[in-house]
Amino acid sequence: VRVSELGEDALLARITARLDDPAPGEVWTGDDAAVVAAPEERCLLTTDLLVEGLDFELAWFTGADVGWKSLAVNASDIAAMGGLPRHAVAALALRQDASVDLVDGIVDGMRDACRCWGVTLVGGDISGGSDIAVSVAMTGAVARPVLRSGARVGDEIFVTGSLGGAASGLAALRAGVEARARFPTLVERQLRPRARVDAGVALARAGATAMIDVSDGLAVDLARLLEASGVGCAVDPDEIPIDEGVMALARAYPEIVSDPLEAALLGGEDYELLFTIEATEGRAPLEEVSCTRIGTIVAGAARVGGRELDEWRGRGWQHLQSP
Amino acid sequence: VRVSELGEDALLARITARLDDPAPGEVWTGDDAAVVAAPEERCLLTTDLLVEGLDFELAWFTGADVGWKSLAVNASDIAAMGGLPRHAVAALALRQDASVDLVDGIVDGMRDACRCWGVTLVGGDISGGSDIAVSVAMTGAVARPVLRSGARVGDEIFVTGSLGGAASGLAALRAGVEARARFPTLVERQLRPRARVDAGVALARAGATAMIDVSDGLAVDLARLLEASGVGCAVDPDEIPIDEGVMALARAYPEIVSDPLEAALLGGEDYELLFTIEATEGRAPLEEVSCTRIGTIVAGAARVGGRELDEWRGRGWQHLQSP
Repeated sequence: VRVSELGEDALLARITARLDDPAPGEVWTGDDAAVVAAPEERCLLTTDLLVEGLDFELAWFTGADVGWKSLAVNASDIAAMGGLPRHAVAALALRQDASVDLVDGIVDGMRDACRCWGVTLVGGDISGGSDIAVSVAMTGAVARPVLRSGARVGDEIFVTGSLGGAASGLAALRAGVEARARFPTLVERQLRPRARVDAGVALARAGATAMIDVSDGLAVDLARLLEASGVGCAVDPDEIPIDEGVMALARAYPEIVSDPLEAALLGGEDYELLFTIEATEGRAPLEEVSCTRIGTIVAGAARVGGRELDEWRGRGWQHLQSP
Repeated sequence: VRVSELGEDALLARITARLDDPAPGEVWTGDDAAVVAAPEERCLLTTDLLVEGLDFELAWFTGADVGWKSLAVNASDIAAMGGLPRHAVAALALRQDASVDLVDGIVDGMRDACRCWGVTLVGGDISGGSDIAVSVAMTGAVARPVLRSGARVGDEIFVTGSLGGAASGLAALRAGVEARARFPTLVERQLRPRARVDAGVALARAGATAMIDVSDGLAVDLARLLEASGVGCAVDPDEIPIDEGVMALARAYPEIVSDPLEAALLGGEDYELLFTIEATEGRAPLEEVSCTRIGTIVAGAARVGGRELDEWRGRGWQHLQSP
């Protein structure tokens, strides 16, 4: 069944039936706007748009993967402020020939991601279009937001988890090397990214001085943090935590990933948290957060090993630019 | 200059420079999420997506018109709850060949609309795509939200302003009848809709029992209000306030508008407020709000004159459905 056969009102009713029931005293779908409790502290607000063919390809992504990822990338933005995600609204652009099954999948994926991070999807909009596009906006609550601009000279630079997996997963899918069977963790990182919400909250409490999520690649996002803070860095490339799956993929298929370090530095969509914190003399800032110290904030230039960060940065993912 | 030549970071910097500076203690663009003061009361949240070719055509709309309208339709949703719009985020999908001038225009139109309704644009996202699409999400604050579901038998039904203008304006533009010169008020209603924010707040204070904005046409939106409230109506078609420009257009070009009443009942995008309120014996509920009593809430069927509302409703605008 195609969405054009169902019509807007029937599709909205179908979507609403797949979502949770509203909390007492709140209005979610079905009115002009959702009515929810205001955050007790400061309010965070973010939006991210995923477009078919650019941010996801339906050859690899199920509807549920698209729905999941559209929520995850927003929750990651809230996490990168040290906040807790609260409410989301979603706008869908659908081609006339889009199947109702696809829409069901998108909604189910959103719902599952919402439950994972304690977010509530409270409303949305549907329109047509030439692409499938999903635009989610999310609110969050935060007592002390951790900005990109707070890094100080002498702070240590850490990153949670490991890097390069999501971009390598996409490369493996595109290369058609039985990626799902042989490199499932990489595929999972591409299709079902995890927002580091618990880590973000814990790091904010622990005194992280600056934080950003690694969405466009470490080189690009590190440069953004440094620029916002007006500082430089000395990063040791040997300390950058490369995803183990990337190493395995590079060994098996060097034509897909020739340089694992480059994959970790330039590959986007890992949604790990890059943060700075007052020097802790090598100790992890928090036992409960798995993270790796990759360098130090300095007053001078931004360097990764012997090279300027800008040399790396120019090769990272830039939306809108022709390849 | 095309957006693909400029690149994402340069485009974002250009957009940010066109916007207002953040309020003290707040973070707007430039970080992972915006940080704003939480509403004192309950929080409203809504989103609306405008897609080129469906919701606007660049043959008629300047970038500034698109930007304005994308904000207005969201502010109208907040107004229809009796709330005050607060903060907005915008996601833009841009074709590679979109001009930077177009983007500048969209941002300027958003900024002007924000100033008109006291909203602050605090962030956004940019992606590519096959269409130009603008997705805005908006928060609002409200003490007592006016829902669609509160209409009671015996309440009177009112609508603010006049109806049919926006759809007739589009019809005139499409027919190429020197619409801008001869029917400027109709064209304005299509390109630059006004959200009835002041009216919504005043009507909530005055005790409106149910409210909805007329976005998809009176017949469709009235049916939504009645369905949510579980009631019927007796509407007098002679009382429906038809836009004077629609009457003039129908006289001059009956082939464009053959039936002004049908234009007022079925034409969408007027963004007037349709509301119910305890019977006031014909008096306007509020002197400061220009509105017209069009009928009464009843226990039985929904009728407009001698016809069932459903007969009308089926002809109103439905997104996604083939014409």
